[in-house]
Amino acid sequence: MKARILGLICAAASTAALAAEPAVPYPAGYRDWHHVKSMVIEQGHPLFGSFGGIHHIYANAKALKGYRGKTFPDGSVIIFDLLEAVHEGNAVTEGARKVVGVMHKDSKRYKATGGWGFEGFGGGDPGNRVVGNNAASACFACHQPQKDQDYTFSRLRD
Amino acid sequence: MKARILGLICAAASTAALAAEPAVPYPAGYRDWHHVKSMVIEQGHPLFGSFGGIHHIYANAKALKGYRGKTFPDGSVIIFDLLEAVHEGNAVTEGARKVVGVMHKDSKRYKATGGWGFEGFGGGDPGNRVVGNNAASACFACHQPQKDQDYTFSRLRD
Repeated sequence: MKARILGLICAAASTAALAAEPAVPYPAGYRDWHHVKSMVIEQGHPLFGSFGGIHHIYANAKALKGYRGKTFPDGSVIIFDLLEAVHEGNAVTEGARKVVGVMHKDSKRYKATGGWGFEGFGGGDPGNRVVGNNAASACFACHQPQKDQDYTFSRLRD
Repeated sequence: MKARILGLICAAASTAALAAEPAVPYPAGYRDWHHVKSMVIEQGHPLFGSFGGIHHIYANAKALKGYRGKTFPDGSVIIFDLLEAVHEGNAVTEGARKVVGVMHKDSKRYKATGGWGFEGFGGGDPGNRVVGNNAASACFACHQPQKDQDYTFSRLRD
Protein backbone atom coordinates (compact mmCIF):
# COMPACT_ATOMS: atom_id res chain seq x y z
CA MET A 1 0.00 0.00 0.00
CA LYS A 2 2.82 2.34 0.99
CA ALA A 3 4.59 1.59 -2.30
CA ARG A 4 1.41 2.26 -4.26
CA ILE A 5 0.89 5.61 -2.55
CA LEU A 6 4.54 6.50 -3.20
CA GLY A 7 4.00 5.59 -6.83
CA LEU A 8 0.97 7.82 -7.06
CA ILE A 9 2.86 10.68 -5.43
CA CYS A 10 5.73 10.24 -7.86
CA ALA A 11 3.31 10.20 -10.78
CA ALA A 12 1.64 13.35 -9.45
CA ALA A 13 4.99 15.05 -8.94
CA SER A 14 6.02 14.09 -12.45
CA THR A 15 2.76 15.50 -13.88
CA ALA A 16 3.34 18.70 -11.89
CA ALA A 17 6.84 18.96 -13.33
CA LEU A 18 5.42 18.54 -16.86
CA ALA A 19 2.77 21.17 -16.20
CA ALA A 20 5.43 23.55 -14.87
CA GLU A 21 7.01 23.70 -18.34
CA PRO A 22 5.05 26.64 -19.80
CA ALA A 23 3.13 25.40 -22.83
CA VAL A 24 3.54 27.33 -26.08
CA PRO A 25 0.10 28.57 -27.16
CA TYR A 26 -1.36 27.40 -30.47
CA PRO A 27 -0.85 30.33 -32.90
CA ALA A 28 -4.47 31.07 -33.81
CA GLY A 29 -4.85 33.06 -37.04
CA TYR A 30 -1.26 32.61 -38.18
CA ARG A 31 -2.33 32.03 -41.80
CA ASP A 32 -3.12 35.74 -41.98
CA TRP A 33 0.33 36.78 -40.75
CA HIS A 34 3.15 38.00 -42.95
CA HIS A 35 4.54 35.31 -45.26
CA VAL A 36 8.32 35.59 -44.79
CA LYS A 37 9.66 32.96 -47.22
CA SER A 38 9.29 29.37 -48.42
CA MET A 39 11.46 26.36 -49.22
CA VAL A 40 11.14 22.79 -50.46
CA ILE A 41 13.21 20.10 -48.70
CA GLU A 42 13.60 17.00 -50.89
CA GLN A 43 14.71 13.40 -50.46
CA GLY A 44 18.46 13.27 -49.85
CA HIS A 45 18.53 16.50 -47.84
CA PRO A 46 19.89 15.92 -44.29
CA LEU A 47 16.68 17.34 -42.80
CA PHE A 48 14.33 15.34 -45.05
CA GLY A 49 13.34 12.91 -42.30
CA SER A 50 12.08 15.65 -40.01
CA PHE A 51 11.20 18.46 -42.40
CA GLY A 52 10.75 16.98 -45.89
CA GLY A 53 8.06 18.82 -47.85
CA ILE A 54 7.30 22.43 -48.65
CA HIS A 55 7.37 24.87 -45.77
CA HIS A 56 6.29 28.45 -45.34
CA ILE A 57 7.52 30.81 -42.64
CA TYR A 58 5.03 33.28 -41.18
CA ALA A 59 5.69 36.06 -38.65
CA ASN A 60 3.38 38.09 -36.43
CA ALA A 61 3.80 41.87 -36.18
CA LYS A 62 6.25 41.68 -33.27
CA ALA A 63 8.38 39.10 -35.02
CA LEU A 64 8.55 41.36 -38.08
CA LYS A 65 10.16 43.99 -35.85
CA GLY A 66 12.58 41.33 -34.71
CA TYR A 67 13.59 40.42 -38.26
CA ARG A 68 14.23 44.10 -38.97
CA GLY A 69 16.25 44.65 -35.80
CA LYS A 70 18.82 42.64 -33.88
CA THR A 71 16.64 40.71 -31.42
CA PHE A 72 13.02 39.66 -31.29
CA PRO A 73 10.80 41.35 -28.68
CA ASP A 74 8.76 39.25 -26.25
CA GLY A 75 5.51 38.22 -27.93
CA SER A 76 7.21 37.53 -31.26
CA VAL A 77 5.86 34.36 -32.88
CA ILE A 78 7.41 32.66 -35.91
CA ILE A 79 5.65 29.79 -37.70
CA PHE A 80 7.18 26.95 -39.70
CA ASP A 81 4.18 25.58 -41.62
CA LEU A 82 5.15 22.26 -43.20
CA LEU A 83 3.02 20.64 -45.93
CA GLU A 84 3.57 17.52 -48.00
CA ALA A 85 5.30 18.36 -51.30
CA VAL A 86 3.50 16.51 -54.09
CA HIS A 87 5.81 15.98 -57.10
CA GLU A 88 3.75 15.35 -60.23
CA GLY A 89 3.83 16.44 -63.88
CA ASN A 90 7.00 18.53 -63.49
CA ALA A 91 5.46 20.57 -60.72
CA VAL A 92 5.47 20.60 -56.93
CA THR A 93 2.13 21.30 -55.31
CA GLU A 94 1.07 21.43 -51.68
CA GLY A 95 -0.44 18.40 -49.96
CA ALA A 96 -1.61 17.69 -46.43
CA ARG A 97 -0.22 19.65 -43.48
CA LYS A 98 2.50 17.71 -41.63
CA VAL A 99 3.20 20.02 -38.73
CA VAL A 100 2.85 23.61 -37.57
CA GLY A 101 6.12 24.47 -35.87
CA VAL A 102 6.12 27.43 -33.49
CA MET A 103 8.79 29.63 -31.93
CA HIS A 104 7.28 31.89 -29.28
CA LYS A 105 9.50 34.53 -27.66
CA ASP A 106 9.18 35.06 -23.91
CA SER A 107 12.59 35.79 -22.45
CA LYS A 108 11.57 34.89 -18.89
CA ARG A 109 9.39 31.83 -19.41
CA TYR A 110 11.70 30.19 -21.90
CA LYS A 111 15.03 31.41 -20.51
CA ALA A 112 16.57 27.92 -20.73
CA THR A 113 16.08 27.78 -24.51
CA GLY A 114 17.33 31.19 -25.58
CA GLY A 115 14.12 32.98 -24.62
CA TRP A 116 12.13 30.98 -27.15
CA GLY A 117 9.42 28.44 -26.51
CA PHE A 118 9.30 25.70 -29.18
CA GLU A 119 6.33 23.51 -30.08
CA GLY A 120 5.06 21.49 -33.00
CA PHE A 121 1.39 20.78 -33.67
CA GLY A 122 1.15 17.49 -35.59
CA GLY A 123 -1.07 17.83 -38.65
CA GLY A 124 -1.82 21.37 -37.49
CA ASP A 125 -4.01 19.98 -34.71
CA PRO A 126 -3.90 22.29 -31.64
CA GLY A 127 -4.36 19.21 -29.43
CA ASN A 128 -1.46 17.21 -30.88
CA ARG A 129 1.72 18.57 -29.28
CA VAL A 130 4.72 16.74 -30.72
CA VAL A 131 7.51 18.56 -28.87
CA GLY A 132 6.21 19.08 -25.34
CA ASN A 133 9.03 19.07 -22.84
CA ASN A 134 11.66 18.07 -25.38
CA ALA A 135 12.27 21.57 -26.76
CA ALA A 136 15.88 21.69 -25.58
CA SER A 137 16.95 18.54 -27.41
CA ALA A 138 14.39 18.42 -30.22
CA CYS A 139 14.59 22.09 -31.27
CA PHE A 140 16.98 24.36 -29.42
CA ALA A 141 20.03 22.15 -29.97
CA CYS A 142 19.87 22.96 -33.70
CA HIS A 143 18.91 26.62 -33.21
CA GLN A 144 21.60 27.35 -30.61
CA PRO A 145 24.42 28.05 -33.14
CA GLN A 146 22.18 30.77 -34.64
CA LYS A 147 22.67 32.99 -31.57
CA ASP A 148 23.74 35.96 -33.73
CA GLN A 149 20.28 35.94 -35.32
CA ASP A 150 18.54 35.50 -31.97
CA TYR A 151 18.39 31.72 -32.63
CA THR A 152 16.43 32.01 -35.89
CA PHE A 153 17.42 30.63 -39.29
CA SER A 154 15.14 32.61 -41.61
CA ARG A 155 15.73 36.15 -42.81
CA LEU A 156 13.17 38.54 -44.18
CA ARG A 157 13.12 39.03 -47.97
CA ASP A 158 11.28 41.49 -50.20
CA MET B 1 3.26 69.05 -94.48
CA LYS B 2 -0.39 67.96 -94.46
CA ALA B 3 0.72 64.31 -94.39
CA ARG B 4 3.11 65.01 -91.53
CA ILE B 5 0.40 66.69 -89.48
CA LEU B 6 -1.96 63.82 -90.24
CA GLY B 7 0.77 61.43 -89.06
CA LEU B 8 1.20 63.34 -85.84
CA ILE B 9 -2.56 63.34 -85.28
CA CYS B 10 -2.71 59.59 -85.89
CA ALA B 11 0.18 59.03 -83.49
CA ALA B 12 -1.55 61.22 -80.89
CA ALA B 13 -4.83 59.38 -81.41
CA SER B 14 -3.03 56.07 -81.07
CA THR B 15 -1.38 57.22 -77.81
CA ALA B 16 -4.78 58.36 -76.57
CA ALA B 17 -6.20 54.94 -77.40
CA LEU B 18 -3.40 53.27 -75.46
CA ALA B 19 -3.95 55.59 -72.54
CA ALA B 20 -7.67 54.84 -72.68
CA GLU B 21 -6.93 51.21 -71.71
CA PRO B 22 -7.20 51.57 -67.94
CA ALA B 23 -3.83 50.67 -66.40
CA VAL B 24 -3.84 48.12 -63.57
CA PRO B 25 -2.33 49.79 -60.49
CA TYR B 26 0.84 48.36 -58.95
CA PRO B 27 -0.32 46.41 -55.87
CA ALA B 28 1.53 48.33 -53.14
CA GLY B 29 1.90 46.37 -49.90
CA TYR B 30 0.82 43.02 -51.35
CA ARG B 31 3.55 41.16 -49.41
CA ASP B 32 1.46 41.75 -46.28
CA TRP B 33 -1.69 40.28 -47.81
CA HIS B 34 -3.02 36.79 -47.15
CA HIS B 35 -0.80 34.03 -48.57
CA VAL B 36 -3.25 31.76 -50.41
CA LYS B 37 -0.98 28.97 -51.70
CA SER B 38 2.29 28.19 -53.49
CA MET B 39 3.58 25.97 -56.28
CA VAL B 40 6.84 25.14 -58.06
CA ILE B 41 6.75 24.83 -61.87
CA GLU B 42 9.72 22.85 -63.16
CA GLN B 43 11.43 22.21 -66.47
CA GLY B 44 9.21 20.03 -68.69
CA HIS B 45 5.97 21.58 -67.43
CA PRO B 46 3.95 23.15 -70.30
CA LEU B 47 4.00 26.52 -68.50
CA PHE B 48 7.71 26.44 -67.66
CA GLY B 49 8.65 28.99 -70.34
CA SER B 50 6.33 31.63 -68.94
CA PHE B 51 5.98 30.67 -65.30
CA GLY B 52 8.91 28.43 -64.37
CA GLY B 53 10.01 28.95 -60.76
CA ILE B 54 8.28 29.09 -57.40
CA HIS B 55 5.18 31.23 -57.16
CA HIS B 56 3.07 32.43 -54.29
CA ILE B 57 -0.52 33.64 -54.55
CA TYR B 58 -1.60 36.54 -52.33
CA ALA B 59 -5.08 38.02 -51.94
CA ASN B 60 -6.29 41.31 -50.51
CA ALA B 61 -9.27 41.38 -48.12
CA LYS B 62 -11.86 41.75 -50.91
CA ALA B 63 -10.36 38.90 -52.89
CA LEU B 64 -10.57 36.69 -49.79
CA LYS B 65 -14.33 37.30 -49.80
CA GLY B 66 -14.32 36.30 -53.45
CA TYR B 67 -12.54 33.00 -52.78
CA ARG B 68 -15.09 32.22 -50.08
CA GLY B 69 -18.09 33.11 -52.26
CA LYS B 70 -18.98 32.61 -55.91
CA THR B 71 -17.66 35.80 -57.50
CA PHE B 72 -15.03 38.37 -56.59
CA PRO B 73 -16.26 41.86 -55.65
CA ASP B 74 -14.85 44.93 -57.41
CA GLY B 75 -11.59 45.94 -55.76
CA SER B 76 -10.43 42.32 -55.38
CA VAL B 77 -6.74 41.97 -56.18
CA ILE B 78 -4.95 38.63 -56.60
CA ILE B 79 -1.15 38.44 -56.91
CA PHE B 80 0.95 35.81 -58.65
CA ASP B 81 4.43 36.46 -57.23
CA LEU B 82 6.97 34.48 -59.27
CA LEU B 83 10.54 33.94 -58.03
CA GLU B 84 13.40 31.91 -59.48
CA ALA B 85 13.46 28.39 -58.03
CA VAL B 86 17.05 27.54 -57.07
CA HIS B 87 17.60 23.74 -57.03
CA GLU B 88 20.63 22.91 -54.89
CA GLY B 89 21.55 20.30 -52.28
CA ASN B 90 18.23 18.47 -52.51
CA ALA B 91 16.32 21.62 -51.73
CA VAL B 92 14.49 24.33 -53.63
CA THR B 93 15.04 27.86 -52.37
CA GLU B 94 13.78 31.20 -53.62
CA GLY B 95 15.88 33.34 -55.94
CA ALA B 96 15.33 36.65 -57.69
CA ARG B 97 11.82 37.90 -58.44
CA LYS B 98 10.82 37.24 -62.06
CA VAL B 99 7.44 38.94 -62.22
CA VAL B 100 4.58 40.19 -60.07
CA GLY B 101 1.41 39.18 -61.88
CA VAL B 102 -1.78 41.03 -60.95
CA MET B 103 -5.49 40.38 -61.44
CA HIS B 104 -7.51 43.44 -60.45
CA LYS B 105 -11.31 43.19 -60.46
CA ASP B 106 -13.29 46.12 -61.82
CA SER B 107 -16.31 44.83 -63.65
CA LYS B 108 -16.86 48.06 -65.62
CA ARG B 109 -13.31 49.07 -66.54
CA TYR B 110 -12.21 45.58 -67.53
CA LYS B 111 -15.51 44.32 -68.94
CA ALA B 112 -13.81 42.95 -72.08
CA THR B 113 -11.65 40.56 -70.02
CA GLY B 114 -14.18 39.08 -67.63
CA GLY B 115 -14.17 42.10 -65.31
CA TRP B 116 -10.48 41.56 -64.50
CA GLY B 117 -7.56 43.79 -65.37
CA PHE B 118 -4.34 41.83 -65.92
CA GLU B 119 -0.80 43.15 -65.62
CA GLY B 120 2.71 41.83 -64.97
CA PHE B 121 5.48 43.87 -63.40
CA GLY B 122 8.81 42.52 -64.67
CA GLY B 123 11.23 41.86 -61.81
CA GLY B 124 8.62 43.38 -59.49
CA ASP B 125 9.44 46.85 -60.86
CA PRO B 126 6.32 49.08 -60.81
CA GLY B 127 7.64 50.85 -63.92
CA ASN B 128 8.16 47.69 -66.00
CA ARG B 129 4.75 46.68 -67.37
CA VAL B 130 5.09 43.50 -69.38
CA VAL B 131 1.44 42.97 -70.35
CA GLY B 132 0.12 46.44 -71.12
CA ASN B 133 -2.59 46.30 -73.75
CA ASN B 134 -2.12 42.59 -74.43
CA ALA B 135 -4.21 41.34 -71.51
CA ALA B 136 -6.81 39.67 -73.75
CA SER B 137 -4.32 37.46 -75.61
CA ALA B 138 -1.52 37.22 -73.02
CA CYS B 139 -3.68 36.49 -69.96
CA PHE B 140 -7.43 36.26 -70.41
CA ALA B 141 -7.26 33.64 -73.17
CA CYS B 142 -5.97 31.11 -70.61
CA HIS B 143 -8.23 32.30 -67.79
CA GLN B 144 -11.42 32.32 -69.86
CA PRO B 145 -12.22 28.58 -69.41
CA GLN B 146 -12.20 29.19 -65.64
CA LYS B 147 -15.46 31.15 -65.85
CA ASP B 148 -17.06 28.99 -63.13
CA GLN B 149 -14.44 30.26 -60.67
CA ASP B 150 -14.80 33.86 -61.87
CA TYR B 151 -11.78 33.31 -64.17
CA THR B 152 -9.37 32.35 -61.36
CA PHE B 153 -7.31 29.15 -61.10
CA SER B 154 -6.35 29.17 -57.42
CA ARG B 155 -8.56 28.05 -54.55
CA LEU B 156 -8.20 28.96 -50.91
CA ARG B 157 -6.71 26.29 -48.63
CA ASP B 158 -6.36 26.12 -44.84
